[in-house]
Amino acid sequence: MAFDSDDRQNWRAAVAQVRARTLALAAPLSPEDMQAQSMADASPAKWHLAHTTWFFDEFVLGPAGASPPAPEGTRYLYNSYYETVGERHPRPDRGLVTRPGVAEILDWRRAMDAALDRFCETAPAAAFAAAAPLIELGLNHEEQHQELILMDILSLFARHPAAPAYRTDLASAAGPDREQGWIRHEGGLVEIGAGPQGFAFDNERPRHKVWLEPFSLADRLVSNGDWLAFMADAGYATPTLWLSDGWDSVKRESWAAPFHWRESSDGWRQVTLAGLEPVDPAAPVCHVSYYEAEAFARWAGARLPTEAEWEAIAHPADFTGNFLENDILRPAPSRDGSLFGDVWQWTSSAYSPYPGFQPGAGAVGEYNGKFMSGKFVLRGGACITPRGHVRASYRNFFEPQLRWMFAGLRLARDCA
Amino acid sequence: MAFDSDDRQNWRAAVAQVRARTLALAAPLSPEDMQAQSMADASPAKWHLAHTTWFFDEFVLGPAGASPPAPEGTRYLYNSYYETVGERHPRPDRGLVTRPGVAEILDWRRAMDAALDRFCETAPAAAFAAAAPLIELGLNHEEQHQELILMDILSLFARHPAAPAYRTDLASAAGPDREQGWIRHEGGLVEIGAGPQGFAFDNERPRHKVWLEPFSLADRLVSNGDWLAFMADAGYATPTLWLSDGWDSVKRESWAAPFHWRESSDGWRQVTLAGLEPVDPAAPVCHVSYYEAEAFARWAGARLPTEAEWEAIAHPADFTGNFLENDILRPAPSRDGSLFGDVWQWTSSAYSPYPGFQPGAGAVGEYNGKFMSGKFVLRGGACITPRGHVRASYRNFFEPQLRWMFAGLRLARDCA
Amino acid sequence: MAFDSDDRQNWRAAVAQVRARTLALAAPLSPEDMQAQSMADASPAKWHLAHTTWFFDEFVLGPAGASPPAPEGTRYLYNSYYETVGERHPRPDRGLVTRPGVAEILDWRRAMDAALDRFCETAPAAAFAAAAPLIELGLNHEEQHQELILMDILSLFARHPAAPAYRTDLASAAGPDREQGWIRHEGGLVEIGAGPQGFAFDNERPRHKVWLEPFSLADRLVSNGDWLAFMADAGYATPTLWLSDGWDSVKRESWAAPFHWRESSDGWRQVTLAGLEPVDPAAPVCHVSYYEAEAFARWAGARLPTEAEWEAIAHPADFTGNFLENDILRPAPSRDGSLFGDVWQWTSSAYSPYPGFQPGAGAVGEYNGKFMSGKFVLRGGACITPRGHVRASYRNFFEPQLRWMFAGLRLARDCA
Amino acid sequence: MAFDSDDRQNWRAAVAQVRARTLALAAPLSPEDMQAQSMADASPAKWHLAHTTWFFDEFVLGPAGASPPAPEGTRYLYNSYYETVGERHPRPDRGLVTRPGVAEILDWRRAMDAALDRFCETAPAAAFAAAAPLIELGLNHEEQHQELILMDILSLFARHPAAPAYRTDLASAAGPDREQGWIRHEGGLVEIGAGPQGFAFDNERPRHKVWLEPFSLADRLVSNGDWLAFMADAGYATPTLWLSDGWDSVKRESWAAPFHWRESSDGWRQVTLAGLEPVDPAAPVCHVSYYEAEAFARWAGARLPTEAEWEAIAHPADFTGNFLENDILRPAPSRDGSLFGDVWQWTSSAYSPYPGFQPGAGAVGEYNGKFMSGKFVLRGGACITPRGHVRASYRNFFEPQLRWMFAGLRLARDCA
Repeated sequence: MAFDSDDRQNWRAAVAQVRARTLALAAPLSPEDMQAQSMADASPAKWHLAHTTWFFDEFVLGPAGASPPAPEGTRYLYNSYYETVGERHPRPDRGLVTRPGVAEILDWRRAMDAALDRFCETAPAAAFAAAAPLIELGLNHEEQHQELILMDILSLFARHPAAPAYRTDLASAAGPDREQGWIRHEGGLVEIGAGPQGFAFDNERPRHKVWLEPFSLADRLVSNGDWLAFMADAGYATPTLWLSDGWDSVKRESWAAPFHWRESSDGWRQVTLAGLEPVDPAAPVCHVSYYEAEAFARWAGARLPTEAEWEAIAHPADFTGNFLENDILRPAPSRDGSLFGDVWQWTSSAYSPYPGFQPGAGAVGEYNGKFMSGKFVLRGGACITPRGHVRASYRNFFEPQLRWMFAGLRLARDCA
Repeated sequence: MAFDSDDRQNWRAAVAQVRARTLALAAPLSPEDMQAQSMADASPAKWHLAHTTWFFDEFVLGPAGASPPAPEGTRYLYNSYYETVGERHPRPDRGLVTRPGVAEILDWRRAMDAALDRFCETAPAAAFAAAAPLIELGLNHEEQHQELILMDILSLFARHPAAPAYRTDLASAAGPDREQGWIRHEGGLVEIGAGPQGFAFDNERPRHKVWLEPFSLADRLVSNGDWLAFMADAGYATPTLWLSDGWDSVKRESWAAPFHWRESSDGWRQVTLAGLEPVDPAAPVCHVSYYEAEAFARWAGARLPTEAEWEAIAHPADFTGNFLENDILRPAPSRDGSLFGDVWQWTSSAYSPYPGFQPGAGAVGEYNGKFMSGKFVLRGGACITPRGHVRASYRNFFEPQLRWMFAGLRLARDCA
Repeated sequence: MAFDSDDRQNWRAAVAQVRARTLALAAPLSPEDMQAQSMADASPAKWHLAHTTWFFDEFVLGPAGASPPAPEGTRYLYNSYYETVGERHPRPDRGLVTRPGVAEILDWRRAMDAALDRFCETAPAAAFAAAAPLIELGLNHEEQHQELILMDILSLFARHPAAPAYRTDLASAAGPDREQGWIRHEGGLVEIGAGPQGFAFDNERPRHKVWLEPFSLADRLVSNGDWLAFMADAGYATPTLWLSDGWDSVKRESWAAPFHWRESSDGWRQVTLAGLEPVDPAAPVCHVSYYEAEAFARWAGARLPTEAEWEAIAHPADFTGNFLENDILRPAPSRDGSLFGDVWQWTSSAYSPYPGFQPGAGAVGEYNGKFMSGKFVLRGGACITPRGHVRASYRNFFEPQLRWMFAGLRLARDCA
Repeated sequence: MAFDSDDRQNWRAAVAQVRARTLALAAPLSPEDMQAQSMADASPAKWHLAHTTWFFDEFVLGPAGASPPAPEGTRYLYNSYYETVGERHPRPDRGLVTRPGVAEILDWRRAMDAALDRFCETAPAAAFAAAAPLIELGLNHEEQHQELILMDILSLFARHPAAPAYRTDLASAAGPDREQGWIRHEGGLVEIGAGPQGFAFDNERPRHKVWLEPFSLADRLVSNGDWLAFMADAGYATPTLWLSDGWDSVKRESWAAPFHWRESSDGWRQVTLAGLEPVDPAAPVCHVSYYEAEAFARWAGARLPTEAEWEAIAHPADFTGNFLENDILRPAPSRDGSLFGDVWQWTSSAYSPYPGFQPGAGAVGEYNGKFMSGKFVLRGGACITPRGHVRASYRNFFEPQLRWMFAGLRLARDCA
């Protein structure tokens, strides 16, 4: 996507493409599937369809006076967390809102798509210039919810005793096993973060200097085979490998394997978007918490990279990895040395503001900044992330005990 | 229903009538409505549709080798609480089972209805005689779930900010206000409970003697108007009116009015199956817990009746009250002196086994007996109960803090 | 105790005797022991010392203008549950009130004892007559707290890894094993409850008629040996033996033996007031919940008695059993057929008001009545109950999941 | 303290001085005060007395074979969190361990003091050289628990309705109000962390380079007067000022003022170690969480400093502030520009390992490193911290919602 152009046809195409993909992701789901909410952290697919539409209503077409009629209660029901916008429905209760139904929400989406298209085509230049940054934000926001639809549905189907498949026609995740090597970096003063040009979320800015000591980064992700060795070596039963809070989680939640794994008479299986599949030792491990990733790294005699180390190694245009468009939707053994794709990679960096950080103006200032406590940064994008959505400076973030994301890890170590 | 006949046509008609009514009750609901579970105590409407079908599969046609094919996982997913039958899905997670969907469950219901009909028509006499008591139990069981579908849906819609109506074409609940009078009973040795003939649940038996002191029972239910007076007199703010556990509930859950009531600028409204309606002072109060009923009675200088007192007054054939068939589906002002209908009536009797109680044989022995702790008995049936389902000896039972049932009260007092 | 006399010397002696025994029970405890609160249901020994003194301050000498000065905050800190008296300190926080300390509370007790004695000796007749029922209630109240001091201390020491002994000089609990026989009752119309003469709590009144079917009651308590057989027969692993709520407790709290039992390499031991002792098969089982007692009875092909059945068998003057004065302070094998002593006996009766029940006048009306929901009645007194405290009509009551009381059971069964 | 000397007299003096101060801090407390545990995060004073003794037993004299006899169960009861050492008593249950009592623990302390002194005087050079780093760690550890004794006791007394004073003879906390100014730093590459010489905790090492942008740091702490202005401006009622998790805390815990503040008819008071005192507008605000500090800074148009910024400004020998030795034990208005003392200062830095961090060898490797998630760094020491305990590189750390520490804040802001 190139949003610095004022060629309206590009905008119309980008809007149409992103909005259509959301619908395509929901297509395999029944109304019942789209209604259910697997846990407080997740949302019903139906809610994602509505919330991404509400975003354009609230922040783009509403202020421009160009919104189509919305179902009753929209503003209250589909506001996610914007205090500035007003009261909102409690997040854990999203699965109880059965009306409007899926059909009504799809009608609203269609009306919104048409109105957006019309606005992109016909809005006066000044109005469009004012709206364009929020349209761009809205599309990036919608891509985030595309990923959320998939991880939330997986977490729902994983609660089902039969672990139904989201799709049975996905591309194969098979691939070669590969030894892990190391990429060395000499350290020194580097710059990370997004520069002033192009789209980036506010939390990626400003670009700034960081001093690094010499280090090495692994040239592939930690694999299921690596993880099985950790399990076989009593990784989940050795408290000295774990952060104190992590060990509390292990005991409280009886962790003994990654999330979505099930033991069967013929070995470990994992619930995937293709249904229940054998765990492939060559594929990257997925659905591990920060605590697990951190303990694994200690067990392996290594550590997690900081986000600055990760970004210092990442080539800014290296997006050949396994993304949503590959239509695999499960992590797959890496075929090349790309730092990106397959699974989000836990870093050891707490999610904090960069020096000089400024949240966006208005309600969208709540987009990122207010979550800057208690979370760790993940980098690189996953097999359910739209390819063009990720950047070298992209900062994803989750709480250290969470496991329903497509999260894994890549090792790092100090160099002499 | 007359089930002591061996006229197979009567059985076929009864089965067809009860099963069809369940479908009719679900008809106004969308797949999304039928998927959601408002709380752990309630179940999705879809689950009720499946569970009532599972009951015939598990206890009637399965043992007879006459069951139609069932969706995968049926035995695990739709067993409610029968330990004898095996492992079952956790109750609070019923709303997460999106597959099988509504359509597949309706297909299964239709196949079951056809198989039941065929079985009633063609089963050899010995096989039918063995199955008949369980068919009868299954129909009474299904009638209980008809009531549950309605109270669970109301509790779901009551969580919705807009409180949608289940139906907009219900009969009117309007009616005259009426002074309360008293019905006197001289006490002495009475008999209560179901005799050996005719259908009754095991918990209604055996019929047995109870000694009563002289008492009076009110000739109408406590009304919303009575309740508003209690509220105006600080009923919810006066701890000495309450049982200790009740007062804890008042504070912990911030009770200030019956469940499903909402205060608005023009007075109290209540969420009903017809949507949000003004509270009618003449109508019986509904959706109050045992704790509230008991506190109200103390405030009124009266008390709740025991279940033996209630039954000693009840005429065994007096079913002119407001039941499901009236198609009002809300409590309505009483037009006559019937003890039955409108709302279940809390009694002061803890739910305990009668002297000589014997649970049913086999798995259905778990039907009632194992719930005999921590609950209170309610009598009389409600506006969402099928008329023929209730008996003078009928014992409903719920925990004292629950409020989503259609429960109200009738006062009693000692006589000199 | 004979309180119907107006011989003031008898009153003085009774007051002195009861008050002194409380102090004697606290004597083996350090200030640290008396400060700690083992759980929200229990209270620190120090609090019991203060609360029993507050009772006389609030209800006897205060109204008479004869109270000695009390430590600051007394009224707030030592009110247990009397809403009429005003705000009070939250029960779970009693263990956090370190000041006043034990010494200051003992000073206050001594001053109160002296003032009580003076009041009994010198109060004008009218004032004394008004106060006497509350003095009598206060002494019976204090005897209840004597039992609570012991059960609360045991629950505290049972939380200690070394299970320290409350006393090491207790009398032996050894005794003969004995076969269980049955006592038959022909049923019919019986009377239970306390008559109008003599002291009884309000919940024991009025005396009233109850109809009983023929039944038998076991002539001894269920023993540890019986219980070990239940355990060996997978009693704690067989859901069909249990009430539904009971089975939930088994799983949630991982019950596998009575409370305070610990498995060791040479068999089961139990924490007692004499420290950790081997489980004696001949002694009555103790520290079982209602749920466990009820499941055991079902396993044994019997049932629990109702409280009316129990009382119909109990000889009103049969107090030869094992009580506090025996100074054993653990249940001991029964030497005779007394129905009383050793352990409180669960009945199948929910704790409900008797027909015509009237709570006491004033604040002491909160003494019993407001707890009449969610509890079951226990009868007979325990080895930590003062002998004179119990009556045939005495109703103790606890919630069905609780286990820190000295509670066991005696079987019953229907007769043809 | 100078521990790089092998002059044994210095060691003996240091040990004696630190150990004696712990006893002096416990002197105003009764056995009851020392038994109670105010919450799971805090410990009984008695436990601190024992745990600090256990530390020398476990890590110093035990391995050297020079430990005096310890009370039974010591190793299990007084291990805080060392998994390497073995099983330990659950932290929330520390207040339930009434035996050994205070007297027995004091006897043990005295025996340990004598044995430590003897060891310092007479141990062979090699043995002493091996033990010396652990003695040094043990003394620094004990100083941390000196602070904990005071903050835990304050949190206990603050739960008491009368808020008793820990001491009534403390020095006055009065002082002048002062305008806030700014200290500017030009940024660039700085070094922070402890160098290889002298005592420091492992988490302060290694010394390493950090790049800073230009910034300013306030020359005094935020005062109670500042905080009252924040409160008057609806600081606690304005969600957009808060981190999302912080706002959740505000609502869930009904925060409306700093911890230990109580509103009275003549204004705000705070519970202090001198009892309940009026809030002094000139004194530094204390007992605020990270969330509150961070929200305040946003409201003030500023931000919290990073720990590197703070350390870059701090003069390494500037310890003229208000520390434990001042015997004020409450934050006091600042008389000079020292960065240290009065209250720990929240920084915006999550508590993370420094580049190249190595935990200590053996069990003491669990001292710091395993807590490096979910916490924020505080700097500077407080009025209850021993003066010599703090360093410019010293990193204290707590979870962002906690408030019972003596924690406040100092503002920072970016410079152009």
